[in-house]
Amino acid sequence: MSNLSEEAIKKHAELKGKIVVKPKAPIRNKHDLSIYYTPGVADVCMEIAKDKSKVYDYTFKGNSVAIVTDGTRILGLGNIGPEAGLPVMEGKAMIMSQFGGMDAFPICLNTTDENEIVNVVKALEPVFGAINLEDIQTPKVFRIYDKLTEELNIPVFHDDQYGTGMVVLAGLINAMKVTGITKETAKVAIVGCGSAGYGISQLLYEYGFKNVVCFDSKGAIYKDRGHLEYHKQRISEKINTQPNVFTGKITDFKNADILISASKPGSVPLEVIRHMNKPRIVFSLANPTPEISPEQASELDIDVFGTGRSDIPNQINNAVVFPGFLRGLLDFRIRKISLKMYVAAAEGVAKSVENPKKDEVIPSPFNPNLVKNIKEEMKKVL
Amino acid sequence: MSNLSEEAIKKHAELKGKIVVKPKAPIRNKHDLSIYYTPGVADVCMEIAKDKSKVYDYTFKGNSVAIVTDGTRILGLGNIGPEAGLPVMEGKAMIMSQFGGMDAFPICLNTTDENEIVNVVKALEPVFGAINLEDIQTPKVFRIYDKLTEELNIPVFHDDQYGTGMVVLAGLINAMKVTGITKETAKVAIVGCGSAGYGISQLLYEYGFKNVVCFDSKGAIYKDRGHLEYHKQRISEKINTQPNVFTGKITDFKNADILISASKPGSVPLEVIRHMNKPRIVFSLANPTPEISPEQASELDIDVFGTGRSDIPNQINNAVVFPGFLRGLLDFRIRKISLKMYVAAAEGVAKSVENPKKDEVIPSPFNPNLVKNIKEEMKKVL
Repeated sequence: MSNLSEEAIKKHAELKGKIVVKPKAPIRNKHDLSIYYTPGVADVCMEIAKDKSKVYDYTFKGNSVAIVTDGTRILGLGNIGPEAGLPVMEGKAMIMSQFGGMDAFPICLNTTDENEIVNVVKALEPVFGAINLEDIQTPKVFRIYDKLTEELNIPVFHDDQYGTGMVVLAGLINAMKVTGITKETAKVAIVGCGSAGYGISQLLYEYGFKNVVCFDSKGAIYKDRGHLEYHKQRISEKINTQPNVFTGKITDFKNADILISASKPGSVPLEVIRHMNKPRIVFSLANPTPEISPEQASELDIDVFGTGRSDIPNQINNAVVFPGFLRGLLDFRIRKISLKMYVAAAEGVAKSVENPKKDEVIPSPFNPNLVKNIKEEMKKVL
Repeated sequence: MSNLSEEAIKKHAELKGKIVVKPKAPIRNKHDLSIYYTPGVADVCMEIAKDKSKVYDYTFKGNSVAIVTDGTRILGLGNIGPEAGLPVMEGKAMIMSQFGGMDAFPICLNTTDENEIVNVVKALEPVFGAINLEDIQTPKVFRIYDKLTEELNIPVFHDDQYGTGMVVLAGLINAMKVTGITKETAKVAIVGCGSAGYGISQLLYEYGFKNVVCFDSKGAIYKDRGHLEYHKQRISEKINTQPNVFTGKITDFKNADILISASKPGSVPLEVIRHMNKPRIVFSLANPTPEISPEQASELDIDVFGTGRSDIPNQINNAVVFPGFLRGLLDFRIRKISLKMYVAAAEGVAKSVENPKKDEVIPSPFNPNLVKNIKEEMKKVL
């Protein structure tokens, strides 16, 4: 076991929980009790009973986020169950609180049934201002996301899709500034069509990339390939609006300017990168081991290289974007998220790096301007 | 609107939520992030995946309580909906945190369907160490309580039944010390057979009272009365083990030593109290207006009189017991609650009043020994 593992286990055992629920004000005496609880609270309840929207004025609903998982796809660890997923969800709740000032609470569900998950989240709506879906298997999660977005009056965010999508787009915006590649002319490959690959593709199309090809293990995705799952069907529809529809294998894909892989080690043949144009941008997102190692990246003459790793430059880390984005959703009382909002938030992240360089295209999650910048850009598209 | 109402509404509008979710430790830098979140957290997850019980060692599960309502019976306000119930649940969460050190979270459900409520709470089990049912209509709530108790591996507590039951029993223990009435000989009337009346009756039987009659609006409850709801059926079974089964109306019930009403103003005819023995104990629990006013109590020569009101002595307030009781459930890792545990907790509350007097049979919720005393007594019956 590594030193980091040992330290993490020790720290978790010491803390026994990384979040704490506290009163916002102390109950000092009987009078306080009669204000915060009975009998005083009854009139507050009646105000909300008369006008439900006042729940935002008198309770924490407008600041609370449910982090919902069923434990079926925790990090890169697979289907390890809701209890085993709880440390990740607590970690996210910590981050949402510290960087975004939200009251985020882990909801780890003891069911993996799609309809039950939808029903449970619908039942929880009164308490939360936003829903964050997390680490749920594909393609189920796409249908859950769509159904909840349709049926709830609060925004539903799926970090694995669009958190990753936003930080990748933010990184690309800066990487393009550094390399001179433009969205109008760039040829882009996305390798891997899970939640991340899907979210990235949607945001790249929305941002204005004209030539983006998505690959799964069978090759490029296109409309008539057959047997396409729910989300791949959608990707194929956008792909088929492009002037040239590539239908081959990844090894036949040449002269790309940008390659983003959200798959697993072994899924990106090195020859594909050798056949890319120069300058070339590669984001290799597999966790904890990227598809392309830093050593290979240097040998392959990649100009801007990013990974999920925290120990090398350009960490593609959702934590730079989800606290600010969720903060924006709550503060602007968004009901349904649009692709425009995601793109705007990505621009907010990108501009938080004042002078982008090859090895600095993504800001640190500790950058104090992140939330402000993300909200500023989101506001422009409301 | 009263001053208290105005102050309560103003305070709630200022706070916009009475609870806050915070990191237990700050995330100071990239290293902290890699310990609390990825990649370090992955090994913690795997430890729990290998042995699910370790979720108690590495997460906040062992300290977290869900406060579950469907908004159908909020305080005395009726079915005002889950949003309007949220201020009460936040208030309870504050109290649980401040007096019991728990991480309590409001779960206000957007469904009033019995089976759906059961399913949602079952789905939430991985995150919580205990469930507190709150302000759900009878008789539905009795069935929900029973099903959840049967099916969950964490304890299910229904404050309206047993929180009230425990504080009433605690008050009676001290009131009997003051008056010399004994449980073996006391004749007891319970007026009102909702959650509170039911819970009180169960604890009084368990404590060893031999002659307890329960009244609903139709008169005394007994086995062959017919058309008894779920919980009244249960009461009737205990009643019918008593030597003399009273089958009349409340106005015919004479020579009681103790009367506890958990009903509504008008449900206790004053002549019933005039016909009680001396000394006499009356707890009148209707909220906010008790069935018997303090003025009537004095005119009716009641020796120990208690109400839910905070502005007169002997406030029968669940807040003296539920924080300590839930603390005990979590600390002793109780799976299912027994009646013995409730009785023990009531004794813990009772002994927190050092010298019981006519107008001091219940401790203040701010009494610093409450949690310790409750846990001490609970421990004896494990």
